[in-house]
Amino acid sequence: MAGAEWKSLEECLEKHLPLPDLQEVKRVLYGKELRKLDLPREAFEAASREDFELQGYAFEAAEEQLRRPRIVHVGLVQNRIPLPANAPVAEQVSALHRRIKAIVEVAAMCGVNIICFQEAWTAGLGHAGHSFQIYTTPRWLKPSGQREKLPWTEFAESAEDGPTTRFCQKLAKNHDMVVVSPILERDSEHGDVLWNTAVVISNSGAVLGKTRKNHIPRVGDFNESTYYMEGNLGHPVFQTQFGRIAVNICYGRHHPLNWLMYSINGAEIIFNPSATIGALSESLWPIEARNAAIANHCFTCAINRVGTEHFPNEFTSGDGKKAHQDFGYFYGSSYVAAPDSSRTPGLSRSRDGLLVAKLDLNLCQQVNDVWNFKMTGRYEMYARELAEAVKSNYSPTIVKE
Amino acid sequence: MAGAEWKSLEECLEKHLPLPDLQEVKRVLYGKELRKLDLPREAFEAASREDFELQGYAFEAAEEQLRRPRIVHVGLVQNRIPLPANAPVAEQVSALHRRIKAIVEVAAMCGVNIICFQEAWTAGLGHAGHSFQIYTTPRWLKPSGQREKLPWTEFAESAEDGPTTRFCQKLAKNHDMVVVSPILERDSEHGDVLWNTAVVISNSGAVLGKTRKNHIPRVGDFNESTYYMEGNLGHPVFQTQFGRIAVNICYGRHHPLNWLMYSINGAEIIFNPSATIGALSESLWPIEARNAAIANHCFTCAINRVGTEHFPNEFTSGDGKKAHQDFGYFYGSSYVAAPDSSRTPGLSRSRDGLLVAKLDLNLCQQVNDVWNFKMTGRYEMYARELAEAVKSNYSPTIVKE
Repeated sequence: MAGAEWKSLEECLEKHLPLPDLQEVKRVLYGKELRKLDLPREAFEAASREDFELQGYAFEAAEEQLRRPRIVHVGLVQNRIPLPANAPVAEQVSALHRRIKAIVEVAAMCGVNIICFQEAWTAGLGHAGHSFQIYTTPRWLKPSGQREKLPWTEFAESAEDGPTTRFCQKLAKNHDMVVVSPILERDSEHGDVLWNTAVVISNSGAVLGKTRKNHIPRVGDFNESTYYMEGNLGHPVFQTQFGRIAVNICYGRHHPLNWLMYSINGAEIIFNPSATIGALSESLWPIEARNAAIANHCFTCAINRVGTEHFPNEFTSGDGKKAHQDFGYFYGSSYVAAPDSSRTPGLSRSRDGLLVAKLDLNLCQQVNDVWNFKMTGRYEMYARELAEAVKSNYSPTIVKE
Repeated sequence: MAGAEWKSLEECLEKHLPLPDLQEVKRVLYGKELRKLDLPREAFEAASREDFELQGYAFEAAEEQLRRPRIVHVGLVQNRIPLPANAPVAEQVSALHRRIKAIVEVAAMCGVNIICFQEAWTAGLGHAGHSFQIYTTPRWLKPSGQREKLPWTEFAESAEDGPTTRFCQKLAKNHDMVVVSPILERDSEHGDVLWNTAVVISNSGAVLGKTRKNHIPRVGDFNESTYYMEGNLGHPVFQTQFGRIAVNICYGRHHPLNWLMYSINGAEIIFNPSATIGALSESLWPIEARNAAIANHCFTCAINRVGTEHFPNEFTSGDGKKAHQDFGYFYGSSYVAAPDSSRTPGLSRSRDGLLVAKLDLNLCQQVNDVWNFKMTGRYEMYARELAEAVKSNYSPTIVKE
């Protein structure tokens, strides 16, 4: 396996395939080819200065007679943490705030209306390129990779008025931008418990609401269920000035019903802030969010971290292998998928990046009217069959000779 | 667009990519690389003589202490019709029976235990390479591409004792092979109506049962809803000697809930016999059946026709384009996907073919125990939410400022 240094699928294909074949490969893999956005030069200069990748693509829809195009620019951010992970928690969070502020400023230059950061973005993932340095204290990300409580739990904040929410409110107001901020939440009004939560902040600067991760992984090193429970807020959709959005956090992307319920509640764009590693899920990554965009006639935005995590104490990953000190690299590759099965290329597998996508939300209804998956969905039948299936005395329909 | 003559994605990648890149591309696109099956030489010779492609791959599972490997060989058949479509119906069906018999004999040489043909396989699709010949009478396939009734409706048969079922029973018994035979069904016991049905025949030769297409397309030229209705048999799973199987016919692959209910009823292999064309769905094809295998911890077998269809009378396709006489080519590309996200390469986009896959069904439970999508599925919540959502007075959960 070439590992994290292999930059991206798209770069490899562009480099080696003759043009006619490249076009056919892109058509089969990605649907139609998307136009690159003509982003401002100062945005590229700032991205270069700040050392992150910047890409932009446009999804177009047909012209209609009665509706004007419903254009929205979304921004997807993938990043590593800027400070060593043995720095004090407060300094790590501040450094992440500064890093994100710089990226959001570039997003603003690009006209981004809705921006989404990666899962648990203030609980920094340590990363030092791919030099595999071993630190003397753990490098914290979401609790997946370790079994310690302190200091990790100190990254959790109030969703309503924690320092990160206040920070995002300023960003939102300054840049007239909806901010989706996935954090670790401490709910002091309900037993002080932790949640994996996304806070949605209106471009007015007001907290529009929050949504919680509905499905919690118990997979290998991702033993998150010892930290927080399955979300209890259902499938809220947020009406913003730029369109109706929802947030399906990380492991929820494996559950088609989770995407479906956000879509049934009216989501036109579903963000999927994630943190997932190469050996576990990289071949699932291009499939799931894209299938959700197709099946639900909506846009989906898949965001993954970059970087490699190291721990001072050896641990086993439940995969039959010997104890080790890292659990592999987060492979980035953030992308946007559309209801017509087209998608953007992925961001880099290893660099920080901002992906800007111009969407015409009219495409959702247009594709719905062509493919009719909602009309032909037979949800009454499935509601009935599922209700039966969950009964303890359910007898599956199995035909025997 | 290079069209039907572009042979396959895999051939293109193998030809142009240097080995280390090819390996990484395959890992990202396909998960782990599968071992090629060592099929008998006489099988390749017979396939060559009969002019169809033969490929074989093995999916492996970890060794267990208490269960032996549960090995099953599945066969997927994609084909065009051998006779011109202006031949009499009975001759067309006989020619298809002969063609399929020859392919099944090769499958038997390869040790296939369960074989599945393409959707509505006896209602032949006319095809003459890619020479775009115009015939003086329509070339019949399933009713998708035209609006005529006769002679198309004459391809419909009894699922229980029609000539095609009797033909398949002989095949099944002779070769000790389960046969999945998707046909057009005439149900004379219930108002003589038509259905899009798959008959499942045990390797004993007995008809095990039938299952019907649950979701009927109303998409462009695929105006099937004027011929038959949504299936009324629910989501039956068939217990065969070689494992539990289900059949999700064609357009049902766009509906994640359809796959889910087959899986909840215990299906370990879900066949998806289809007939779908390049311009409409080719970029969805590698996504949907594969997502279903991942999401449901099972194997899926996606089968598509090959060939191009021409009609004597011009028609419009509801896509804003001028009237024309064909609706594009069926792009084959049949493949098998596994619960661990790996998949076989696709068969050719234009040639008849038989894809043999050796599965170890133990992989389903092994992946289930790693990823836990069933355990974390929260089906009670979704049964409740869906039951609410289908009510006419349902108010979606939309958060506004």
